[in-house]
Amino acid sequence: MAEATFPLDAWYPLAWSGEIGRSLFARKICGRDIVAYRRIDGEIAALEDACWHRLLPLSLGKLVGDDVVCGYHGLVFNAAGRCTHLPAQKTINPSACVRAYPVVERHRLVWVWPGEPALADPARLPDFHWNDGADWKGEGGTFVSLGCDYRLVVDNLMDLSHETYVHSESIGHDAILDSPFEVTHRGGTVTLARWMIDIEAPPFWEKMLGKPGSVDRWQIVTFQAPNVVVGDVGAAPTASGAPQGDRSQGVNGAFLAALAPETATTCHYFWNFVRTFARDDHELTRRLTLAHVNDGKGVYDQDHRVLEAQQKAIDSNPRQPFFNLNIDAGALWSRRKIDELIAADTVNAQAAE
Amino acid sequence: MAEATFPLDAWYPLAWSGEIGRSLFARKICGRDIVAYRRIDGEIAALEDACWHRLLPLSLGKLVGDDVVCGYHGLVFNAAGRCTHLPAQKTINPSACVRAYPVVERHRLVWVWPGEPALADPARLPDFHWNDGADWKGEGGTFVSLGCDYRLVVDNLMDLSHETYVHSESIGHDAILDSPFEVTHRGGTVTLARWMIDIEAPPFWEKMLGKPGSVDRWQIVTFQAPNVVVGDVGAAPTASGAPQGDRSQGVNGAFLAALAPETATTCHYFWNFVRTFARDDHELTRRLTLAHVNDGKGVYDQDHRVLEAQQKAIDSNPRQPFFNLNIDAGALWSRRKIDELIAADTVNAQAAE
Amino acid sequence: MAEATFPLDAWYPLAWSGEIGRSLFARKICGRDIVAYRRIDGEIAALEDACWHRLLPLSLGKLVGDDVVCGYHGLVFNAAGRCTHLPAQKTINPSACVRAYPVVERHRLVWVWPGEPALADPARLPDFHWNDGADWKGEGGTFVSLGCDYRLVVDNLMDLSHETYVHSESIGHDAILDSPFEVTHRGGTVTLARWMIDIEAPPFWEKMLGKPGSVDRWQIVTFQAPNVVVGDVGAAPTASGAPQGDRSQGVNGAFLAALAPETATTCHYFWNFVRTFARDDHELTRRLTLAHVNDGKGVYDQDHRVLEAQQKAIDSNPRQPFFNLNIDAGALWSRRKIDELIAADTVNAQAAE
Repeated sequence: MAEATFPLDAWYPLAWSGEIGRSLFARKICGRDIVAYRRIDGEIAALEDACWHRLLPLSLGKLVGDDVVCGYHGLVFNAAGRCTHLPAQKTINPSACVRAYPVVERHRLVWVWPGEPALADPARLPDFHWNDGADWKGEGGTFVSLGCDYRLVVDNLMDLSHETYVHSESIGHDAILDSPFEVTHRGGTVTLARWMIDIEAPPFWEKMLGKPGSVDRWQIVTFQAPNVVVGDVGAAPTASGAPQGDRSQGVNGAFLAALAPETATTCHYFWNFVRTFARDDHELTRRLTLAHVNDGKGVYDQDHRVLEAQQKAIDSNPRQPFFNLNIDAGALWSRRKIDELIAADTVNAQAAE
Repeated sequence: MAEATFPLDAWYPLAWSGEIGRSLFARKICGRDIVAYRRIDGEIAALEDACWHRLLPLSLGKLVGDDVVCGYHGLVFNAAGRCTHLPAQKTINPSACVRAYPVVERHRLVWVWPGEPALADPARLPDFHWNDGADWKGEGGTFVSLGCDYRLVVDNLMDLSHETYVHSESIGHDAILDSPFEVTHRGGTVTLARWMIDIEAPPFWEKMLGKPGSVDRWQIVTFQAPNVVVGDVGAAPTASGAPQGDRSQGVNGAFLAALAPETATTCHYFWNFVRTFARDDHELTRRLTLAHVNDGKGVYDQDHRVLEAQQKAIDSNPRQPFFNLNIDAGALWSRRKIDELIAADTVNAQAAE
Repeated sequence: MAEATFPLDAWYPLAWSGEIGRSLFARKICGRDIVAYRRIDGEIAALEDACWHRLLPLSLGKLVGDDVVCGYHGLVFNAAGRCTHLPAQKTINPSACVRAYPVVERHRLVWVWPGEPALADPARLPDFHWNDGADWKGEGGTFVSLGCDYRLVVDNLMDLSHETYVHSESIGHDAILDSPFEVTHRGGTVTLARWMIDIEAPPFWEKMLGKPGSVDRWQIVTFQAPNVVVGDVGAAPTASGAPQGDRSQGVNGAFLAALAPETATTCHYFWNFVRTFARDDHELTRRLTLAHVNDGKGVYDQDHRVLEAQQKAIDSNPRQPFFNLNIDAGALWSRRKIDELIAADTVNAQAAE
């Protein structure tokens, strides 16, 4: 058996809330084909997307009330995955059911738990409140079936020094490389903090601040194992107290990433860039979205070209593991947290028996 | 070795008679690449489609008289597969030959025997006389390289209850599910018979009958292992004696399916829908053909979407064997008949040694 | 491990000289991804196309002076493959390097040695002087990623009897098959010589000679193991002394082939057709190029349809080894020379340990 690359006992983003309505929605998460829909009461159901009988994807069938009717022979499954109707027979085989996946809707995303249902504690959901649309404003998007292991995205986000090279013409800045950073970790989180003190303001932040002069800039990126990264980024006028905790003179944004492996070498990437300033400036919202993803020209588009090329190189090149540099400290700790979850995974343990 | 999914000692449809003429015709049957052509005397030859010398497909060469000339080095093979000419040398290696497959042309189809030639008895050809164009009229077609195991098509045709769901807007009818059916089997055949007595006439049959009133409708589907299904279908005015054997007041059609595995997960499907009534109504013939296959809108098009999705689900889902329902009785017996042929297969036996 | 199909200790054509300039050029040779570029002093460097750090293809980065800067994290490698800069750290890991491949530019091609660098002796370069543009004139081309094992091209060129069938409408000629040939071999070379004495001049050669009358035609094809074929071809008026060595009354051309395996079943094929006569006739040069490759209509296009079909047949057909004919003597000796190199290969030997 190939080595596991993700734990199954974890919450993974399945879709944006708005994607799931009164029709059948199919997406593969962690190698599991899942069909999801919104029940009449608004709650979301997520079932195994293969009929118990002959495996036809249930997503090719119909939603009737809160039930799914298979498009081949008409078996009916309720939102708990239990079969409630068999064609042309009265007795229902008690084993007739499809798997139901625990689901929680939180912070504008729908999270699914592909592992052991009994362990699916909502308390284990990652903190993703920045995505709520309340104090932070932004409209993100999704990369569906991005052609790389989700851990390569984690590597990418847990080391922003790559901005200097991948995004040399936009957000790249030599100060990123010149400034020291600190990595800390606790429980399932890893934090990479970098302060650039008294630097010339990068054009974007200067414009957002709306005043000239040197700034203190910060990048405080936190990984929540196995699949969420939140980057607290911003700038404030030098000597206005930001490093000491007073950001009141500055501007603050956050990049958000919630990842779901699709297979061992592809993933879905739900992203957003949110901010606390100019929250009603819809034109700014639109421009920030386009700065990230814009038909190949956004900064995330640049990352993804790199990530997919890296995955191809890994596939064709047996040289493993990677060699590492100082800049990889955040990524290495993040991988270690993922490995701990994989080692503790009850589903993986069963498969290995 | 993967488990065999088809016997080789059997007659499989290679092509419609009209497809084979005075040029080289290539098709893969049961994993064997075959080149076929019509000899000057009108008989059909079928050879292994790979030159003895360097494997180039003979179908890329030329037909000269009754011989095939390889398009690379000009080796010549006669209709028995024996090499009759080698380039630039007089002595012919007695081993220089390609395999010749037994062929019989019958009922407008060309049947080929990929297994042990000594067993290729024309008496073992399936009964497919409905396709002759004599008493029954209809123009069918072919699905080449349909993306599913041929046995999924057998499953599909040996349980018409799926019509209610897959074809809900055309031939589906609740009466199908409400009516009991009987499965019988003898030798290599399985018959599934369903009579719907005194029902409201479905629109199609009402129109064909040309008179109002309730009908007795029948579906008597016979499988001939391993690869032929014939469905005797029709309707007659209730109490006109059809269930007792007098169909003279009714209308009678038959759906015909001759299947050839291409690989373990793809097949060629030769189909027709024939009828005994209104045989000279060419417009009806045309409309019946379009009702079955019409650029994605026909009933067979609907089946094939389901079948290909089912195959994909099987490929990606290790859950096997299928769970079964009462409605699967016809399919299960059909599978059993196929398995018996596979177990008895002389070629499979050799491969397993 | 699959059986080796090529030695690594050999010179393979990577590109035409004109293809390598002041930008990063990527091509896979013998399964190795290679990035090549021209240094400021005009010499060519060829490196492993995967960053030491995280495997991103270096060809996605930038050429700065004589160094390559990785497009992900900015590692810098010099033309010897040694890392000279790491991001955000002063100490450079002494192991930080990528493989540098020996390269020689010769006869308008760039040759690379994918095997043990210490053995990369320029004295082992094949003789390819016909391609220089000095005494012989012609403009060839490249088939990149041709879909066949490079050895099938060798087979093809070391037996010109196929011209009769593959090129029956252009250069094919029954005289080729009717004339005896002689195969000799010495060291790593195999020579196939065929003289057609006192034959009617084929249209092409008659036109080139510019005078009527019967001719003596020759095809003297030499293989240099493992990957170069040069065909000395021409015609002279019968009895003008050509077979005895005086070609002064005749016209002389040469077809040139330098092959590089890309993978076990694909290759790059650098070809040319050169001549000693009418060297300033640019229109003739153009027409000769089009006669070979012309959007599917040239003679090499015809060969390649055959070669790719043959590779597909080999892939799907376990019948190996090939059966052989007298005409295969040149190809068989060529294969034997390749096998000797494979057996002696130091890299293959290591891999097998």
